[in-house]
Amino acid sequence: MKQSQLFPKTRKEAPKEAVSINHKLLVRAGFIDQLMAGSWTLLPLGFRVVQKINQIIREEMNAVDAQEMLMPLLHPKEIWSETGRWDKADEIMYKLKDVHGKEYVLSFTHEEIVMDLLRKNIKSYQDLPVSVYHFSTKFRHEPRARSGILRGREFMMKDLYSAHATEKDLMDYYEKVKEAYRKIFNRLSFNFKVVEASGGVFTDKFTHEFQVLDAGGEDIIYTCDKCDFAQNREIFEGKEGESCPKCKEGKIVKKEGCVEVGNIFPLGTWYAERMGMYFTDKDGGKKLVWFGSYGIGPTRVMGTLVEVSHDEKGIIWHPQVAPFDVHLIELPGGHGEEVYRKLKDAGVDVLWDDREVSAGEKFSDADLIGIPVRLIVSGKTGDKIEWKERTSEKSELLSFEEITSRLNI
Amino acid sequence: MKQSQLFPKTRKEAPKEAVSINHKLLVRAGFIDQLMAGSWTLLPLGFRVVQKINQIIREEMNAVDAQEMLMPLLHPKEIWSETGRWDKADEIMYKLKDVHGKEYVLSFTHEEIVMDLLRKNIKSYQDLPVSVYHFSTKFRHEPRARSGILRGREFMMKDLYSAHATEKDLMDYYEKVKEAYRKIFNRLSFNFKVVEASGGVFTDKFTHEFQVLDAGGEDIIYTCDKCDFAQNREIFEGKEGESCPKCKEGKIVKKEGCVEVGNIFPLGTWYAERMGMYFTDKDGGKKLVWFGSYGIGPTRVMGTLVEVSHDEKGIIWHPQVAPFDVHLIELPGGHGEEVYRKLKDAGVDVLWDDREVSAGEKFSDADLIGIPVRLIVSGKTGDKIEWKERTSEKSELLSFEEITSRLNI
Repeated sequence: MKQSQLFPKTRKEAPKEAVSINHKLLVRAGFIDQLMAGSWTLLPLGFRVVQKINQIIREEMNAVDAQEMLMPLLHPKEIWSETGRWDKADEIMYKLKDVHGKEYVLSFTHEEIVMDLLRKNIKSYQDLPVSVYHFSTKFRHEPRARSGILRGREFMMKDLYSAHATEKDLMDYYEKVKEAYRKIFNRLSFNFKVVEASGGVFTDKFTHEFQVLDAGGEDIIYTCDKCDFAQNREIFEGKEGESCPKCKEGKIVKKEGCVEVGNIFPLGTWYAERMGMYFTDKDGGKKLVWFGSYGIGPTRVMGTLVEVSHDEKGIIWHPQVAPFDVHLIELPGGHGEEVYRKLKDAGVDVLWDDREVSAGEKFSDADLIGIPVRLIVSGKTGDKIEWKERTSEKSELLSFEEITSRLNI
Repeated sequence: MKQSQLFPKTRKEAPKEAVSINHKLLVRAGFIDQLMAGSWTLLPLGFRVVQKINQIIREEMNAVDAQEMLMPLLHPKEIWSETGRWDKADEIMYKLKDVHGKEYVLSFTHEEIVMDLLRKNIKSYQDLPVSVYHFSTKFRHEPRARSGILRGREFMMKDLYSAHATEKDLMDYYEKVKEAYRKIFNRLSFNFKVVEASGGVFTDKFTHEFQVLDAGGEDIIYTCDKCDFAQNREIFEGKEGESCPKCKEGKIVKKEGCVEVGNIFPLGTWYAERMGMYFTDKDGGKKLVWFGSYGIGPTRVMGTLVEVSHDEKGIIWHPQVAPFDVHLIELPGGHGEEVYRKLKDAGVDVLWDDREVSAGEKFSDADLIGIPVRLIVSGKTGDKIEWKERTSEKSELLSFEEITSRLNI
């Protein structure tokens, strides 16, 4: 698209209250806008990044036979009362009454609502397993709504839920989803650890968190420097520098500044017991359904990507999540429109800086926005195009065919 | 995908409380599930249809240079109070307080929130026009939440907003959007009228509704049988049978049972006046921004499609919005898996009925779900495949190549 039409313009200054890097850079570059504490509009650039993140997640969810759907956000009190959770997270749930006095809670999470849907539709072992997910909005009245888009009061979540006839089937699927999550976070280029966390009241097993390292976050984990052992601070009982309890060879290292981008829970039969979710097994007996839930926060993922990939000039997007494939910069004498048309015809997603501003302003905006490949056309480049990557100082003069070949088009 | 895995199974019986056709058929066929009055889960089949509807809308929005984004659903009272609308639609707005007493309203519509975003980012005539849209959730406490998915309390909306420096620019864009809406509803195969409606407090011009005819709805319009004159019942001052006030040649006809699937509003400067939304014009003067808003309800569109396209056996989807391109029915002796793989490899979106149930059950489910093309493989079809369309009694034996060629693959 034409940058002259892109809404909104970049900003020279970060908001006064912004402390975290993602807050400063995403607002300055025009990816997000704050409506109120913890509540953000995804502006056109930010929306594009989140759509690309979501598509990566969607492909890996579909690969484990999960089915996409969309569940409501306004939930009746009655269903949340069945598990006792109506009162549990009272402080951070948004509750309301309609004009007739009927009470609701805004989607804090969806376990109860999925369970209600399942019990209306699952009668027999032949109806299991079921695996469904959606991308939708969650509302949590976090006392500390800060860290930019890392901790919102209203935020996007991909939540997957699975129901099974046996514990073994649940745990086999749990491992499949753990592997799908590894693929997702690898595709997002994160340096992350799969970290054991408490099972809480739900299970005597561990749950797992996916923690991105060195991401400016508030989480602390303990990992082995040799094997894949990793636990969060709530459950780790050893000390930094000790031998690893798993491999015995490595040493335990403390990692601060982690950000949790995903978590998975083998919830067992806790929900089915409270919500009366039975199925008829092969032998004709009534059995409780085994249940798991699995979350990723796409908007938090976007913020974390900025925390781990930026420099003093701006954001550095990886190609797989960049808002555009290339940033075409037109300087005086360059055939911008012609190259723009040819790139679009070749299937390249282009942001074309067609604005009448100085070269310096164009380059500093391009650095701030962070599209990985910059193409420059000017009076000097003739029938060639200058190719420069966001992370390199080097630039090269290439033909149009060389450009599309490098872009793998 | 394999039908044995599809969630949920079809139902023989419609819900007792269901009156409208879309309610009965969409629930029986497994497209939607009711959480509470006016609140629906889009199940995997329904989600697929809505995604296809949304993609048609998205393409036509992008074609008029609108930019997709995503705005929050929880809105602060302060912003809604600026226009006085906090108190106006009190009965059908969902309002709430958080634990600190701060007041909010759930997204009833987004004019105020978009205006707030614009006034933070628009300073000069050079920043205009702006045209932004999103697909998101609206909450309206309708007293009558019935008619299936036609009238929900929580429902999906595509809402577009545009801001302009002059009335002329707003009205030119308004006509472009009207034309884009015509394209969308033509692509959805609707028999519809563009109907004049009152401008209310916003404008002395008309607003426009897009009304689908013979759709089992509650709206009544008056149209000319010769020209494109059409007005809704609130503003039409003549009588049925009179000469058309526009072309003078045709006669006025009353149409009952219409469903409004879209509406567009040239809101003028009403919002800018109340919210202090000024820009600096070329001459240095401060001027009010001209504003318009434009809505389509994708979930209501899905319900309306069912109302106008079904028979006694079930739904009849048009190919452009069908949940799958083809329904592959495997009967004993048929090479279902082989044909399924080949179709998928050819890029066809297939629902493969791999279930071990009778042929009768497979055919009646296929009629109910309503995918436009049915392919049957059995011991009798040999190395050919039987092609039967949902709306035809005729069936033909075709080769795989003939099938893909007919599907335009």
